[in-house]
Amino acid sequence: MSFQHPDQWFTEVFEPSGSAFSLRIRQKLAEVQSPFQHIEIYDTTDFGKLMVIDGCTMVSTRENFLYHEMMSHPALFTHPNPQQVVIIGGGDCGTLREVLKHGSVQQVTQIDIDEQVTRMAEQFFPELCASNQDPRAIIAFDDGIKYMREAAPNSLDVVIVDSTDPVGPGEGLFNRAFYQSCLQALKPGGILVQQSESPLIHLQLLNDMRQAMKDAGFSALQTLNFPQMIYPSGWWTCTLARKDAEFTGFRRDDAQAATFNTDYYNADIHQAAMALPNFMKRQLVG
Amino acid sequence: MSFQHPDQWFTEVFEPSGSAFSLRIRQKLAEVQSPFQHIEIYDTTDFGKLMVIDGCTMVSTRENFLYHEMMSHPALFTHPNPQQVVIIGGGDCGTLREVLKHGSVQQVTQIDIDEQVTRMAEQFFPELCASNQDPRAIIAFDDGIKYMREAAPNSLDVVIVDSTDPVGPGEGLFNRAFYQSCLQALKPGGILVQQSESPLIHLQLLNDMRQAMKDAGFSALQTLNFPQMIYPSGWWTCTLARKDAEFTGFRRDDAQAATFNTDYYNADIHQAAMALPNFMKRQLVG
Repeated sequence: MSFQHPDQWFTEVFEPSGSAFSLRIRQKLAEVQSPFQHIEIYDTTDFGKLMVIDGCTMVSTRENFLYHEMMSHPALFTHPNPQQVVIIGGGDCGTLREVLKHGSVQQVTQIDIDEQVTRMAEQFFPELCASNQDPRAIIAFDDGIKYMREAAPNSLDVVIVDSTDPVGPGEGLFNRAFYQSCLQALKPGGILVQQSESPLIHLQLLNDMRQAMKDAGFSALQTLNFPQMIYPSGWWTCTLARKDAEFTGFRRDDAQAATFNTDYYNADIHQAAMALPNFMKRQLVG
Repeated sequence: MSFQHPDQWFTEVFEPSGSAFSLRIRQKLAEVQSPFQHIEIYDTTDFGKLMVIDGCTMVSTRENFLYHEMMSHPALFTHPNPQQVVIIGGGDCGTLREVLKHGSVQQVTQIDIDEQVTRMAEQFFPELCASNQDPRAIIAFDDGIKYMREAAPNSLDVVIVDSTDPVGPGEGLFNRAFYQSCLQALKPGGILVQQSESPLIHLQLLNDMRQAMKDAGFSALQTLNFPQMIYPSGWWTCTLARKDAEFTGFRRDDAQAATFNTDYYNADIHQAAMALPNFMKRQLVG
């Protein structure tokens, strides 16, 4: 798509669903080709900064809170006592910041393959990196697939897969072999949570993920809905998978008593995110 | 925004939020300038037919179920016994079809100012018009503001305002005078429901609506959230306002026992739609 004066736009065309989303921009602030991907930063007119990776909108200043809160707090308030957490991907550090709001957490290790994402987040999204100096945080740059394969068995409470789509560097994070590594590294009762795309336009992918999680040996699955304006369709999900336990609610009292600030998440929103529309009830596998 | 070969796109630019949404199209099927607005129909590659009014995406075949179900079932399952219903706007007849699924409903009068919208819906969205011959349905073309002003006092159970945005013909449907007409026409306990735009990018407008509803004399308000891919931000709301009564839940048992088909709505989704994110809790008025 080309651009018309006087405005300039960044457009992500999502070919499989024949849809596109655009934000109006003032200028491109940075552009880097890392060993793994092409990263751009734009200054938008209404959404603050925008990070784009390989042509896909990843993070905007104005609405990233939706994604980062929903990738962290539901899993952490479902686990009875989350102490050891690993984030695979998450290089913008927004999920890390949310995880560190939980007092029970003793250590969070963030493993993103691409150091350049974090360096650009530090520069253009400093608020997302506000907790990077927390002594409980370990920020490393490595292959997340290898990291989970080599992780000590029964050592983790929560694994958060905060990755790009299943193309490019993120591809190996959406299959049975990776989920088996996660399962092995989790303690009994531990929870894997992964962004799982749009129920409106990626239902087959969501189902493939759910099937692979079941095939890997997870005992129970839970897909949560939330809005995310800059991702295709504006409607996104994450999927939780549990080791050796069912999903039987969450720590509602603790969520209600939380003293840290969130802009989207609260106990009612957590409960609401679990509600499945009829078309999902009919079509979800696992 | 201009278009690049080989694909063609329809793009709605939403200037106030500096964002745009596009669907890939095969061709334009029809275009009419009615006395009130400019109506276009496109054949899209992935979302079926698309109706555009004055440059704004209104209805697509693939995802209109979200809007139409949420504009009707929550209000009808909140009212204890909805018998007399009026729809202001709603010319595509999709809301009418959903309302007529309720056995309690004795009469639904649909008042859209623009007959051309209904004629084009009959041709290009026949599934939305499938219940237009129901003997309980009255389809009239008139000024909804005047209709509500002249409606018999205490005669209606539910009024559904299914209109375009508050510019052009829809403008007079978003103010205190119109809401006072609705209040007068409703029976005690009656419910007004109106589409109320995106909480992410139209919060001021949503608050203006809520304030005007309160100023008009409604006793209680309830804003519900739902996804709507083709509307700006992909996240939409409707707001319910009640005459001489509070909102104290809904007929959950009846919603669960409903024998008609819905693709989005169910009792859990109804409950979930009521959950307000923290930023809305902090900022909503009324």
